[in-house]
Amino acid sequence: MQRDIDCIFCKIISAQVPAHVVHEDQTTIAFLDSGPLAEGHLLVVPREHFTRLSDIPAELAAELGAKLPVLSRALKKVTSVEAFNVLCNEGESAGQMVRHVHFHLIPRRPNDSLGYRWNAGTYPAGKAAELAAAFQQAIASHGR
Amino acid sequence: MQRDIDCIFCKIISAQVPAHVVHEDQTTIAFLDSGPLAEGHLLVVPREHFTRLSDIPAELAAELGAKLPVLSRALKKVTSVEAFNVLCNEGESAGQMVRHVHFHLIPRRPNDSLGYRWNAGTYPAGKAAELAAAFQQAIASHGR
Repeated sequence: MQRDIDCIFCKIISAQVPAHVVHEDQTTIAFLDSGPLAEGHLLVVPREHFTRLSDIPAELAAELGAKLPVLSRALKKVTSVEAFNVLCNEGESAGQMVRHVHFHLIPRRPNDSLGYRWNAGTYPAGKAAELAAAFQQAIASHGR
Repeated sequence: MQRDIDCIFCKIISAQVPAHVVHEDQTTIAFLDSGPLAEGHLLVVPREHFTRLSDIPAELAAELGAKLPVLSRALKKVTSVEAFNVLCNEGESAGQMVRHVHFHLIPRRPNDSLGYRWNAGTYPAGKAAELAAAFQQAIASHGR
């Protein structure tokens, strides 16, 4: 299993650095974010070191995905929220700070100051069809 | 398979409403968000109607998770971005607008005006340990 000796999450996974772990199994670990956006903010992390979500094998992505409902239910119970965001940032421009794949589970309350900036646009005529065709081709040729 | 006849995503899935579909299989469908935050903004959606991520079976969550790397790679290729966010909103306070589980894949570029508002805090002494214990108990008793 690949590790990065300078990675803070690899250090947490190998117990070199302490963290408040809430769940762990053979492939994944979940712990409290030490700089929480809200009380109970969790991180869900693969044990193996991958920098990017787009690099992880489908099997590992499935394992991570399968944890989300379980941890979501626990989040809602423990923090008494009805709402939360699941967020994964890939790349510096997306806000990825630790270069080890992680999903944030962020509890949300009415009128908190969190959330995603939602500046929705529209496609000019023909653009969406052109993009969809490009996606279909990319998935067929490189997606798997 | 459960459907909601008033749900816009169920209508897309059953082809009653058109969408620019980029991928579909037995359990999931991905299509362009018609109100994109950035060109190529995708939605990844289970075919079966579930309102909340926290309600979906682990198997379906795994299927959705497994699609994320595949679609991420296609997103990076088609839109020529290095960065993107994966976002799932559960509940009105979290920004969930369509009440059918969906993951956003949002391409990101340097200094775009998107992203998550990041107001990180800290835990007072003892609080994180208390929360972690509550999570462990919740996962043991209700998580599965």
